[in-house]
Amino acid sequence: MTTTILKRYLLAPGPTQVPAEVQLAMAAPIIHHRTPQFSELFGKTAAGARAMFATEQPVMMLACTGTGGMEAAVTNTLSHGDHVLVVKGGKFGERWEEIALRYGLRVTALDVEWGKAVDPAQVAAILEQADDLKAVLVQGSETSTTVLHPVTELAALTRDRDCLLIVDGITSVGVVDMPMDASGIDVLVTGSQKAMMLPPGLALVALSEKAWRANESADLPRYYFDLARERDALAKDTSAYTPAVSLVTGLAAVFELVEATGGWPQVYRRHDILARATRAGVLAMGLELLAPDAPSPAATGVLLPETVDGGALTRYLRDTMGVTVAGGQGRLKGRIVRLAHIGYADTFDVVVALSALEMGLAGLGHEVEFGRGTAAAQKLLMEMYA
Amino acid sequence: MTTTILKRYLLAPGPTQVPAEVQLAMAAPIIHHRTPQFSELFGKTAAGARAMFATEQPVMMLACTGTGGMEAAVTNTLSHGDHVLVVKGGKFGERWEEIALRYGLRVTALDVEWGKAVDPAQVAAILEQADDLKAVLVQGSETSTTVLHPVTELAALTRDRDCLLIVDGITSVGVVDMPMDASGIDVLVTGSQKAMMLPPGLALVALSEKAWRANESADLPRYYFDLARERDALAKDTSAYTPAVSLVTGLAAVFELVEATGGWPQVYRRHDILARATRAGVLAMGLELLAPDAPSPAATGVLLPETVDGGALTRYLRDTMGVTVAGGQGRLKGRIVRLAHIGYADTFDVVVALSALEMGLAGLGHEVEFGRGTAAAQKLLMEMYA
Repeated sequence: MTTTILKRYLLAPGPTQVPAEVQLAMAAPIIHHRTPQFSELFGKTAAGARAMFATEQPVMMLACTGTGGMEAAVTNTLSHGDHVLVVKGGKFGERWEEIALRYGLRVTALDVEWGKAVDPAQVAAILEQADDLKAVLVQGSETSTTVLHPVTELAALTRDRDCLLIVDGITSVGVVDMPMDASGIDVLVTGSQKAMMLPPGLALVALSEKAWRANESADLPRYYFDLARERDALAKDTSAYTPAVSLVTGLAAVFELVEATGGWPQVYRRHDILARATRAGVLAMGLELLAPDAPSPAATGVLLPETVDGGALTRYLRDTMGVTVAGGQGRLKGRIVRLAHIGYADTFDVVVALSALEMGLAGLGHEVEFGRGTAAAQKLLMEMYA
Repeated sequence: MTTTILKRYLLAPGPTQVPAEVQLAMAAPIIHHRTPQFSELFGKTAAGARAMFATEQPVMMLACTGTGGMEAAVTNTLSHGDHVLVVKGGKFGERWEEIALRYGLRVTALDVEWGKAVDPAQVAAILEQADDLKAVLVQGSETSTTVLHPVTELAALTRDRDCLLIVDGITSVGVVDMPMDASGIDVLVTGSQKAMMLPPGLALVALSEKAWRANESADLPRYYFDLARERDALAKDTSAYTPAVSLVTGLAAVFELVEATGGWPQVYRRHDILARATRAGVLAMGLELLAPDAPSPAATGVLLPETVDGGALTRYLRDTMGVTVAGGQGRLKGRIVRLAHIGYADTFDVVVALSALEMGLAGLGHEVEFGRGTAAAQKLLMEMYA
């Protein structure tokens, strides 16, 4: 296929790019996990994770990807037959439902149009009608539809009920200011391959006091994902089972890098600028946003004209141009592309994504006026240097 | 300074970017240089170097940067008091003169306006007048002015005389089709940190039969850079002194990468497209080219309006935006920027360079219409995927 050297650009919403500093930290020789050296690293990293979650609670670091963290969130806080409400507005909402059903929970699914955020009033109405609801399960950012859900508003509904708010924060923790304790989130989950700028393989989970109380009676089966064991081990700066040593080492380097560059507020600001610039560029190209009303700062979904085959476009971008963006998942397959601006992304990732989108459309024979996307984005991207 | 994570883009004409495959090859454990394993690698790499130079002659690989290779070219082919003609159209033409003077040669300098290529008719006239000229020293591509000199035309003048054509090919070998044997170049020098996509530290030098004959009587002092010793060692797949092991390992990986992606013709084609796209982008921005008549495919010099402080611009691009381009050298200091598209560069390096230039000018308060540079470049860059 390739007849010249093709550089690769990873612009999908996870796995995301890993900074060189972090790659180098992870390339260091493995240290044994049952040593004072690793315990010091583990404890320091756990403190960094608490700062990222904005919680006083322990943040457990599990050697699994985000879905394992989602499963742990369910099995550690709920019991067989419990009634839960799943906000189902995308592929990852469906994943909450699948996990809940697999463990014998009774699921009420609130179908949300793909591309829209859940309406807290609808959740409030359901909570009023069904006072046996033990949990609301939602995504902070629904990666498949590039929607940001109103987590803080949902937390206001669950806070004073015997009902947990369980949030898949896989593309919202470290992306947008969503402080766990202040928001009233009961279980918060994220994965290493997103805002943490690491390879996949590490999930982070924290429980509120209310969730820990629920944990005491939660009877769903769990062994590897036993969060109470992990919490007790973490109190001694260690883990119940073998930790993902190199990813924990990488996470320590990530926290140092974030700290050295202005901390999480600067990260949130960067994501916000990149997301707004990407949306402006997409609109300037005459394309429509998948989620114009509640866009995620992690990635931007672009609705493709009906004449464009989304699969062909993402393949052309990847195989011919070297640019990996995400296509649509589930019912959006072939109809959208998703341009990510999460984690180790900056100004020129947006410029590359938009110019590649223009050129990919042109390469497939569609009429494109080059430079419109980048021009609109560049104006907003200047905020990065203000 | 930095208040957010700033990605770094290296868009200067050397050192250039190193492909990940090559970085990983160089990260392998060092092998000892007096072993059959290294000899096999060294011999294979020397063969790849001959293919890149397009020569039947041995290509010596010296553990030094390009300037060391230039010095070796002079000291191995000339004698005290020899008369040489230096084409002096930029900082590296000046370097030829400095080396020649340091070794006691008599120098006739042909001053060429910075930004112009040498006129072969002028060289022909000088050669007619001074029949004691032992060498013409020129750059294939004068990096400081982004000019491509007409080497093949110069070779037609020296070929049938007792006069060597000594070419600094540091930003032309592997950039543009300049076959050593077919062109009639007598000494050709290049450095690892340009088209070879490697870190600095390796210089490659080859001599024609005519240059080897000159070598027999050349009396300038040399020890580390004794090319006859290196030639004899190379015939036994080894080197006179300790070779730059990891760079030779990297060079082997580079040659494999080039071979796997269509060979040198595809590399030349890529450089040509990138250079034309960059020039089109610069002109579309309303800026002028430093070398419109004979532009190098390695880098593009951009004349800045008098109101723009070139030093401030390159500093803003580097320190505020993370983008390293080259400023002007010598008499061009502060008046130009040079955007490189040499080595491991592709489509989006051009897009980044042009959008960064627009944004850098805007950041310094100059009026810029965003997207014009990228738009013009994108049109031409589509050739990459044709």
